[in-house]
Amino acid sequence: MIELHRVGVEEYKKVKKLPVTVVLDNVRSEMNVGSVFRTADAFLIERICLCGITPQPPKAEIHKTALGAEDSVDWQYFDSTLNAVQQLKDQGYTICSIEQVHDSVALQDFPAGLQRPVAIVLGNEVKGVSQQVVDASDLCVEIPQHGTKHSLNISCCAAIVMWQVYQAMALGR
Amino acid sequence: MIELHRVGVEEYKKVKKLPVTVVLDNVRSEMNVGSVFRTADAFLIERICLCGITPQPPKAEIHKTALGAEDSVDWQYFDSTLNAVQQLKDQGYTICSIEQVHDSVALQDFPAGLQRPVAIVLGNEVKGVSQQVVDASDLCVEIPQHGTKHSLNISCCAAIVMWQVYQAMALGR
Repeated sequence: MIELHRVGVEEYKKVKKLPVTVVLDNVRSEMNVGSVFRTADAFLIERICLCGITPQPPKAEIHKTALGAEDSVDWQYFDSTLNAVQQLKDQGYTICSIEQVHDSVALQDFPAGLQRPVAIVLGNEVKGVSQQVVDASDLCVEIPQHGTKHSLNISCCAAIVMWQVYQAMALGR
Repeated sequence: MIELHRVGVEEYKKVKKLPVTVVLDNVRSEMNVGSVFRTADAFLIERICLCGITPQPPKAEIHKTALGAEDSVDWQYFDSTLNAVQQLKDQGYTICSIEQVHDSVALQDFPAGLQRPVAIVLGNEVKGVSQQVVDASDLCVEIPQHGTKHSLNISCCAAIVMWQVYQAMALGR
């Protein structure tokens, strides 16, 4: 533990986070939510907004994939994703929905040049980010994909996007 | 489907892939394996080597997360991960284990300057990549992490690494 510089929950709470909030728009699966917590813990994400039907801790299945990161990462629940997004906008966040739309920004060009703080919105496993939330976003970001599926598991998608913002904001890449 | 340029399995099989093979070293969870297939399909990974106890398709739980990508992405089974790695070495692959070791390369510096083709080895959910396989690798690659957990879900870890090699090899970043 010492060798890996792992920190305890209390210590982690005091560490300076990246100005990045992750918003989960009606994500169904507790395992996906837990997995997003675990990755957010690794990459210093400041907060997760759990919206609509998105399950909230404590839940056994969230814990199974979060492995305790549901305690280290700050989170907040909103009935409506649109309310969460509106509140974040009022606080000066740039709202970035991860969604496949015509005028999307490719992930490799994200988050260059964007005003911080940034909110990253991830949508439901089947429906994606709801149209109202897409409409309320400042931009949409798309992960280039070439396969037969043309979508990624939401926890994998979230991990890739968090790594991308971490690289840009923490490592200056 | 047409708008997203999604391709069928037959068409996908003919598409030129990246010179990247993913090796799963005794991964336990069918859901993790399925998820790796789905991401590999998106990022044009040429093949997955399923080794040791790693479950092989067809399996209901693999299908649940692969959503059919277990049919589009080529795969091969090996009793022993070490045999898979040795065979890949003989074929000229650079063997890169994703593992936290003292002389690891940080993911942001990967895969710059490496000779291709490349094999990416991901380990068991609890034990990681086995020591013998680490010893047989050309290098180890580490994802910088700052949280209380200091490890990522294997399907998230795999997704981040695949995105990184895709960015470098397909997008020239």
